[in-house]
Formats: sequence, structure tokens, C-alpha cells
Amino acid sequence: MAGLQLRIETHQRTQLVDITDRVREAIGTTDKSVVTLFVPHTTAGVVVQAAGEGATAVARDLASALERIVDESWVWEHTSEGDGNPWSHVRTALTGSSLTIPLVDGRPALGDLQAIFLCEFDGPRSRTLHVVVH
Amino acid sequence: MAGLQLRIETHQRTQLVDITDRVREAIGTTDKSVVTLFVPHTTAGVVVQAAGEGATAVARDLASALERIVDESWVWEHTSEGDGNPWSHVRTALTGSSLTIPLVDGRPALGDLQAIFLCEFDGPRSRTLHVVVH
Amino acid sequence: MAGLQLRIETHQRTQLVDITDRVREAIGTTDKSVVTLFVPHTTAGVVVQAAGEGATAVARDLASALERIVDESWVWEHTSEGDGNPWSHVRTALTGSSLTIPLVDGRPALGDLQAIFLCEFDGPRSRTLHVVVH
Repeated sequence: MAGLQLRIETHQRTQLVDITDRVREAIGTTDKSVVTLFVPHTTAGVVVQAAGEGATAVARDLASALERIVDESWVWEHTSEGDGNPWSHVRTALTGSSLTIPLVDGRPALGDLQAIFLCEFDGPRSRTLHVVVH
Repeated sequence: MAGLQLRIETHQRTQLVDITDRVREAIGTTDKSVVTLFVPHTTAGVVVQAAGEGATAVARDLASALERIVDESWVWEHTSEGDGNPWSHVRTALTGSSLTIPLVDGRPALGDLQAIFLCEFDGPRSRTLHVVVH
Repeated sequence: MAGLQLRIETHQRTQLVDITDRVREAIGTTDKSVVTLFVPHTTAGVVVQAAGEGATAVARDLASALERIVDESWVWEHTSEGDGNPWSHVRTALTGSSLTIPLVDGRPALGDLQAIFLCEFDGPRSRTLHVVVH
């Protein structure tokens, strides 16, 4: 196993944090085929989305769309706050906890318009991301 | 290939079944980097969500949220019942059929609050889960 | 790395294209454990869904369900059209950009009712899919 963990600080309740550069750095030099990213939290996910100029607006649109799709005003059974509110769990399930990306010459084979984002749904918090090349 | 299949019985129409212990057992002892879980059905998925005390409530909240997000009363084109109703297909697509989790010392690198769930969207049925360490 | 790229033409705005045969062909003969599929675009995803007779109806139901779940009439911040409209980004995030499927004797361990689909959310376009066995 060639794995390490990144620590990512989030600053808002719902926030997409561009972690592309940190993932590239964590991968370092390798001849392996893929990188797997995994978020060991139940109220944060990982997703590939738009990079570049419009990225911040797209990220905010994605965050607010998930707030609309999973409505906090629904009746929820789970009420404990210690491990996050229920809607943030559902938003995480829709986004996903894990992502596997091919490597080409040791770099994630992202499209020109793609970046990797940690999705915070119950911040601000300090988050961990597992990065494994294999 | 070091793969095996688990058989999982579901008992409700929409149900999240905690399969963490069975996945750990299936992995056994290994020095591989990751485990990939795959559900070979079109109306059941796999997801990482909350473990522990509040887990049952969170799982029920996730199940009922998916029932709200994908509404059975919409007009659907597909009407055959043999391979599952259309809304269960969509809920499966949102949840995902595949999950890759890093291994640390042969154990899935789940967070303390995480568990692995098979998501049944058209039960009760007998389901298969592929478990491959690689 | 044993990877290659498929080129996939889409013909509609929202369209699911069955790519199962092309993925099988791209894999060729291998003794590896899994295949990872990755879409290097921000407005197209990849998903496993129903094969066979009812497949076209299910695919259209999934496409139209995603059009309902992520509503174009919402207020969106991102307005640039060059890299796709915002709702197609969100539909892609819900569907996912990456999929890892176990191989059994060099063939994807799909269920009898499963097929692999590229999900176009901003077509028609010419799309790339990375296929890596590992």
C-alpha cells in the first residue's frame, strides 16, 4: 500500500474545496495505473467538477443545487447533531465518498476543464482525505 | 484476481443493510491496497454512511430521502416489472453500483462513524455483492 | 499502466449511450482484477444501468428523472456556455465520473440485466472515455 492522508480545512457550512494541486503533490512520482481518493467522513464527499475561470460559480451552483435537492425542511428521523444532521448525510451519499482516477505518466488523467473537489456539507470542519496510488 | 461474492438477503422494499462486518470478513488477510465492492443488480446500490448509535435512523432517512427525490408519481416510460420499476433504477444510479475503499493493514480505512451499506430499492430480494481486493 | 481511450459520439442533449460492447472490446484479454472507467468531461458521466429489452425506456426514464431532479429553471450563478450550463454539471456530479468494475476471466462482472452507459448531459458532443485495467 502506497497511501497517505491529506488534511483539509473547510470554512463554510456547504463548500466545495478545489484539492487538485494537493492530490497531484500527494501522488508524487509513480508508475502506477490509478489513484483512489476516499473521504472517511459521513458528511463530506469527493467529486470531479469544473476547473478554471467559471469554477467558483459552478462549485457554488453545485452546493446550492444539493441544498435544493435534499431539503432541510423535510421531516427527519435522525436528530443527533454530534455526527452531523441528516440532510448532510444524504448530500454526501449523492456525491459519493470515493473516486478512482486513471494516471497517465503519474498524473491524474483529468480533462482540461476538470478539477477535484472535496465537498463539505456540515462545515466548517477539519477533514481527512485518503490518497492511494495502485 | 482475488474476488468473492457475498449473498445478502433484504427484507423491505427500500432498505439499507449494514454489511461492514461481512465485507471485513470477506477481505480476510491481505497486503493489497484497496477493496472494490460492486453490485451486479440494477435496483440495488452500495454506499458508505453513518455507523453506530444513530445509524438506523440515518439509514431510514437516506432511504426516505431517495423516495422523495425520485418520485414514483412521475410519468415513467418503462413499465415492465420483471426487472424492477423505473424509480428504483434511478435511485440506484444516484447511489452508485461500485465503491473502492483503501485498505490499511488489510482493513477498510473507514472513519469511526462510517459503515458500508447495501441499498435495496426493490426488495425484498436476494442480492449479490462482489468483493475484490487489488 | 494498461489504458486506452474510447471516442463516443452523442446525438441528443440528454442521452444515455450503451457502451458495454465497446468497453469489453477495449479490455481485450487480461488477467487483471478490475477495470476503471473515467469520463474527463464536466457535463458527462458514466453509470451502470438496465440492459436488454426494456433498456431504452429505462435509459430515457433516467435521463428525464435527472432533468426533473435538477431543474433548469432554478436561479444559477454560472452563466458561461462554453463549458456547459450549470444544471448539466450537477447532473454529472449526481451520476459520477468514474466507475470501477471487477473482472472475472477478463470480462466485467456485470449482472445479466446490467449494461454500462455514458451519460450525456450537454450534447450532442464528441466524448472521451478512459478505460484502464489494473
